[in-house]
Amino acid sequence: MKKLINDPKNVVEEMIEGYVRAHPNYIKQLPANDRALVTARETKEGKVGILIGGGSGHEPGFLGYVGEGMADGVAVGNIFASPSPDPILEVTKAIDKGAGVAYLYGNYAGDVMNFGMAAEMADLEEDIKVGMALASDDVASAPKEEKEKRRGIAGEFFIYKTAGAAADFGYNLEEVIRVAKKTNENTRSMGVGVSPCYLPQTGEPSFEIGEDEMEIGLGHHGEPGIEKGKIESADAIADRLVSDILKDIEITSGEEVAVLVNGLGSTPKMDLYIIYRRVEQILNEKGIKIYKSYVGDYITSLEMGGCSVTLMTLDEELTEMIDHPVDCPMFVQK
Amino acid sequence: MKKLINDPKNVVEEMIEGYVRAHPNYIKQLPANDRALVTARETKEGKVGILIGGGSGHEPGFLGYVGEGMADGVAVGNIFASPSPDPILEVTKAIDKGAGVAYLYGNYAGDVMNFGMAAEMADLEEDIKVGMALASDDVASAPKEEKEKRRGIAGEFFIYKTAGAAADFGYNLEEVIRVAKKTNENTRSMGVGVSPCYLPQTGEPSFEIGEDEMEIGLGHHGEPGIEKGKIESADAIADRLVSDILKDIEITSGEEVAVLVNGLGSTPKMDLYIIYRRVEQILNEKGIKIYKSYVGDYITSLEMGGCSVTLMTLDEELTEMIDHPVDCPMFVQK
Repeated sequence: MKKLINDPKNVVEEMIEGYVRAHPNYIKQLPANDRALVTARETKEGKVGILIGGGSGHEPGFLGYVGEGMADGVAVGNIFASPSPDPILEVTKAIDKGAGVAYLYGNYAGDVMNFGMAAEMADLEEDIKVGMALASDDVASAPKEEKEKRRGIAGEFFIYKTAGAAADFGYNLEEVIRVAKKTNENTRSMGVGVSPCYLPQTGEPSFEIGEDEMEIGLGHHGEPGIEKGKIESADAIADRLVSDILKDIEITSGEEVAVLVNGLGSTPKMDLYIIYRRVEQILNEKGIKIYKSYVGDYITSLEMGGCSVTLMTLDEELTEMIDHPVDCPMFVQK
Repeated sequence: MKKLINDPKNVVEEMIEGYVRAHPNYIKQLPANDRALVTARETKEGKVGILIGGGSGHEPGFLGYVGEGMADGVAVGNIFASPSPDPILEVTKAIDKGAGVAYLYGNYAGDVMNFGMAAEMADLEEDIKVGMALASDDVASAPKEEKEKRRGIAGEFFIYKTAGAAADFGYNLEEVIRVAKKTNENTRSMGVGVSPCYLPQTGEPSFEIGEDEMEIGLGHHGEPGIEKGKIESADAIADRLVSDILKDIEITSGEEVAVLVNGLGSTPKMDLYIIYRRVEQILNEKGIKIYKSYVGDYITSLEMGGCSVTLMTLDEELTEMIDHPVDCPMFVQK
């Protein structure tokens, strides 16, 4: 394991410090808590606050998505670990503009517990209304019948995108949460891992894999996938990922989707576009229309190798939200 | 070596196909040559055309920078190899709007030869005026006295940024080239490599390096650096890179710079921001003002590990050009 870091104990603090100093017009730390970051631009009075968060190591997720058109604040956890309730509560207090705050995060036990506790504290101690929507887009993480057990992976990006737009459009908290939940309902992801990342503090790989192997359905923190086998061609991998998604959600000819081919950290853009090429071919053959495509590192796992494919079906409302401009340090859309 | 590819012979074609299909509103291939890509939006009559190019494997460089505010077209070479004159000439013909075309590329023998030949053909056969500006920002690649021998690395990004803006502002060809050359004069980079990339066709690593080693000054294609040693802390590496730059170009207290911390492909954003943190501290101590910062993968070498630091000194003209909005598939600035 070779990393460009100092003391492994300080990676999160030093990353945040570098990030805030690189983008002072975008983001700032709250004095009350170093792990509580909010937009440096004023959030409009009466707008629903968008709060995101989760463990570190997934950059651009999650602090990279604080900015105009997406999140108003982020609570930052340790590497691959949920933030504690305290920074979540501090962000909540800072970004509430009288319309309440939407918590958007992935369906992981630690996050569910900590965001839940923070929501309760916000309600009881601060009289701030909180709504919650969880990402559970990873088809591989539980069977269709147990969707409530599924993990959130790259599909979270689409939830931030649409809910962020809804809040900008002046939707109330209930409506923002409805949009976030509809986005999650409409979104499915399948991933493949080919090489692990290394945890800064232990130097341990996030999972074990053979020299010529890939693992289908591997989680963002090295959670076991559904099948390990010899690495296949990009086309065969794309076929497998899309086919598993389309077994899980019916998308008919003529329907429109947004596509995200997400790199896990060390996969070249070249490879991601080669995967995209085949995804587009398959959807094209089925008459499914691609409205918008995102290809790149959107939610990573440090230097993990591999990618995921995410499809989100669109209706008129979601299309408008996908089109809404964004200006964040790690993601800009005109 | 594990890659998400099909036949290694087809990686460039398949990447381009995926890229063009992912971003049809931004870029298209010319019928005359598959390796000649131009903006899908109309280039204004009378605007100087901006042509960039080089080998593949450096994505987002170079095809990722075709779009509003940057390049009008790109000639795409094989992995780490210059494009031949033919696609360069085809792009030239397509993007010339009567004001000539600026060729912006890195100082590598193959590129110098091929872009030079294309320029000659454009002049003689097509009566199109061509201007050329080369990036030679890599301090490690030759001594100060032989700057004309230096390679172009991540600093090329700043040349595309400023020259692209100059062309948008209505500058004529001579003026666009003046801006590009001034940018190169004002720009210095120093890099470090910690792990190689693997060439798709041979599976060979781009350079050899020990398990606990780093190489200061390593080139983008694995060209030897100036010093190999035990890997150091992020702070020590940043100190070394910035110090080598500041030995080469005098930047005095009160001067403004743009900073680019560029990842080579597999280096997590976390590490890049930790490097940035120290770069900012050093410049701050010296009273050098950071006007704008870019941190991320801007010009890569497939999955190479490591980073570079680039400083560009700004005057009023260049500041305005750095601020100019950009809308490319792989880089957007509001």
